[in-house]
Amino acid sequence: MNKLPDIKTNFPEWYQEVIYAAKLADHAPVRGCIVIRPYGNAIWENIKKILDDRIKETGHENALFPLFIPQSFFAKEAEHVEGFAPELAIVTHAGGKELDEPLVVRPTSETMIHHMFAKWIVSWRDLPLKINQWANVVRWEKRPRAFLRTTEFYWQEGHTAHATREEALEETLMMLEEYVKLAQNYLAIPVIKGRKTKNEQFPGAQATYTFEGFMLDGKALQMGTSHLLSQSFAHAFDMKFQDKDGAIAYPYLTSWGTTTRLVGAVIASHGDERGLIMPPKIAPIQVVIVPILRKETKDVVIDYVKSLQAQLKAAGISVHVDLDEHTSPGAKFYEWELKGVPLRLEVGPRDMDAGVIVATSRLGKEKETVQADQIVSWAAVKLESIQAELFKRAQDRYASMWHKADKLSDFIKNLEESNGIYQVGWCQHIDCELELKQYAASIRCMIESKELENCFACGKKSFGDVIVGKAY
Amino acid sequence: MNKLPDIKTNFPEWYQEVIYAAKLADHAPVRGCIVIRPYGNAIWENIKKILDDRIKETGHENALFPLFIPQSFFAKEAEHVEGFAPELAIVTHAGGKELDEPLVVRPTSETMIHHMFAKWIVSWRDLPLKINQWANVVRWEKRPRAFLRTTEFYWQEGHTAHATREEALEETLMMLEEYVKLAQNYLAIPVIKGRKTKNEQFPGAQATYTFEGFMLDGKALQMGTSHLLSQSFAHAFDMKFQDKDGAIAYPYLTSWGTTTRLVGAVIASHGDERGLIMPPKIAPIQVVIVPILRKETKDVVIDYVKSLQAQLKAAGISVHVDLDEHTSPGAKFYEWELKGVPLRLEVGPRDMDAGVIVATSRLGKEKETVQADQIVSWAAVKLESIQAELFKRAQDRYASMWHKADKLSDFIKNLEESNGIYQVGWCQHIDCELELKQYAASIRCMIESKELENCFACGKKSFGDVIVGKAY
Repeated sequence: MNKLPDIKTNFPEWYQEVIYAAKLADHAPVRGCIVIRPYGNAIWENIKKILDDRIKETGHENALFPLFIPQSFFAKEAEHVEGFAPELAIVTHAGGKELDEPLVVRPTSETMIHHMFAKWIVSWRDLPLKINQWANVVRWEKRPRAFLRTTEFYWQEGHTAHATREEALEETLMMLEEYVKLAQNYLAIPVIKGRKTKNEQFPGAQATYTFEGFMLDGKALQMGTSHLLSQSFAHAFDMKFQDKDGAIAYPYLTSWGTTTRLVGAVIASHGDERGLIMPPKIAPIQVVIVPILRKETKDVVIDYVKSLQAQLKAAGISVHVDLDEHTSPGAKFYEWELKGVPLRLEVGPRDMDAGVIVATSRLGKEKETVQADQIVSWAAVKLESIQAELFKRAQDRYASMWHKADKLSDFIKNLEESNGIYQVGWCQHIDCELELKQYAASIRCMIESKELENCFACGKKSFGDVIVGKAY
Repeated sequence: MNKLPDIKTNFPEWYQEVIYAAKLADHAPVRGCIVIRPYGNAIWENIKKILDDRIKETGHENALFPLFIPQSFFAKEAEHVEGFAPELAIVTHAGGKELDEPLVVRPTSETMIHHMFAKWIVSWRDLPLKINQWANVVRWEKRPRAFLRTTEFYWQEGHTAHATREEALEETLMMLEEYVKLAQNYLAIPVIKGRKTKNEQFPGAQATYTFEGFMLDGKALQMGTSHLLSQSFAHAFDMKFQDKDGAIAYPYLTSWGTTTRLVGAVIASHGDERGLIMPPKIAPIQVVIVPILRKETKDVVIDYVKSLQAQLKAAGISVHVDLDEHTSPGAKFYEWELKGVPLRLEVGPRDMDAGVIVATSRLGKEKETVQADQIVSWAAVKLESIQAELFKRAQDRYASMWHKADKLSDFIKNLEESNGIYQVGWCQHIDCELELKQYAASIRCMIESKELENCFACGKKSFGDVIVGKAY
């Protein structure tokens, strides 16, 4: 049992170490890639399930498009190819031969999906077309970091086509709202939503909306984006439809995605010196039962905890019983705390006789004694309160690091030293935005607020507030 | 509405056409690949859910391994590299540079997963290690056919490590049994299970078990395989553990997989001249409601069918209400029959007043009148009976094309002309097996039966019965 690096003074090391120590992931023998181990994958599967249900509820259907995209497809949309060219992985040989046209391993699927949309969309009756794909994508990463930035990652990418710009914008904002709900209500991460600056837009988008989380170290993480695409994609792929009046028109497109980065966001939002803390709503294991196994009473205690497990499971609670006989209870407590299981129950022969269970929340250290016949309803309520408490802790953290500032010179030293959230005014000129670059900071998004009068950089009139921070 | 090719005289064309007409899939702009459209993907999602639950119930955990495998990994197991080399797609350039070592796009993940297993397995306490992955894989296909054989396909690949050969064999056979249950109880496809001949084994396996389905045209389809791997993989990847006595040993490995080919198996097992027939247990839509919409009564009929839909949905039945006002009921019937929806309900204003619903099973053409207040329980029972009837029809079909035969000369003409299932004896020599090649036939598997005395080819003593057929 190696001690984790100090979370307060050495967060980047803590982040890396906790991932491997808690067996969320492992290093892979391919540059920039990770192996996502069962415990890490279970978090992703839980997130997927919640989001997939919402994607379907909001009228989208899942489909599967090819991994490989002909290189010429990328050339069709000028900004798009320019944005992605440096990150592409290229298949040049297959089936024992050199290919006539190299294939790109998809970094995103706009070009492939728009090619298909152009076949499928003929009349206004084919619209809206609302498709989603769960897939792996590849972007060659210079500075990989487990879950947050890996060469191969997993995501969903939604792609929709609409008859009007208004409808496409409505879709873009609806999915942004779904993401915000996912982050706040399930991952227990407060997020700041807003629009990206032109400079930070998705290559080929007319408007990119983002939801940004601020991690334990005060750095910003772009947790996902929703794009209103420019018409240029529809033109590039000759995607047209006949409208109700018989005229030919180009549809308005959106795309939106979020990734396994969300697992990284959970890790980096809730941990402490003992390891991970899993929000109950996405925890692979919500309750761990550690029985105290002594020779004479082992069998009855095991029977008893198995019946407890069955009761909790019947109430929809995911439970693991740790029956390992080669590990001490103390070592088990350490491991399940490291893995961030929200609730731990201990049962020994004496507790059993007394009809009680000793419970410990991952958020505290105090033990509570609960009547065994109340355990199911008690645990359900306790898990809800842990979920709420985690979100509140994160909200309090945001409040304490959220600063409103007038001028760059006022806040830049603080930002450089301690990170944090800076709400400032902006004149909307790129020169002022790029001033931040030398401090490794950036405008994370433009928010719906206008509290500051002047641009943080040039001092001229501000057109609206923006959030400035240092990003992952 | 184009008529489908004749299913009896032109099955291959029927198969292709029904896939595109029913919008299961579409041609992709990449050789050998398809786009799996929402209706086709929904079948795959249903199959995945059923199998994933069973994989977890039987003690496996899901993980995610990289898409790319260093080319040198393949060279480590001699048979494996020889078997897969001609089918590989290779990434030679990435991030704007030529790679030092080319990366293979995984055709299967033994080499990558065994590399990781070697890190994770140290002692007997780490065994058994039972991992599964849902992934896309790429094998360059010379003769692609939608769902049955595509360059990129989707699958699950299970990989396990055990302390003893007995335990590994038990695992191999347990998963074969799970596959058989999936095929028979959910896909309504009777399958023949058995062992592959040495000549047809997975490259690097000690024993390969298969489950084979026979499609409507009498051709065999290998629906999935389960392998007891040879020790050579453990040696190649230096995978070792300390056993209970402190000695160093090599674990015994298995791998097993099944793919989107199962969707093809469903299509090719149950269709008819009107199109697909979906087994209710995996049907994306189990019940379609077609309301008869007339101007004056439209609103009340729509309210009524929506309440019907809600009742059926609450009972766990998936229902689609076809409210399209631009299509006639007749055209709708045609479309939902083409898509193979098991049960159709029609409701017009007069039916509504009379408190009845007109129901038609996809297996027949007769309409039944059902009391509206009985519809939920009636539909649940009807769907069960359609599932059972589909399986029985397939069983009857197998019985009618299953022949026991002594000599190749007795049955080869029949096999060449009409396909079918031939149970014959075999001396276990490869020369006799390869005799079948000139007739485009093969031994599909060795079964647990010994009814025939002599080898079908050489006439010498048989060591057990084998199934001969023509394969996809």
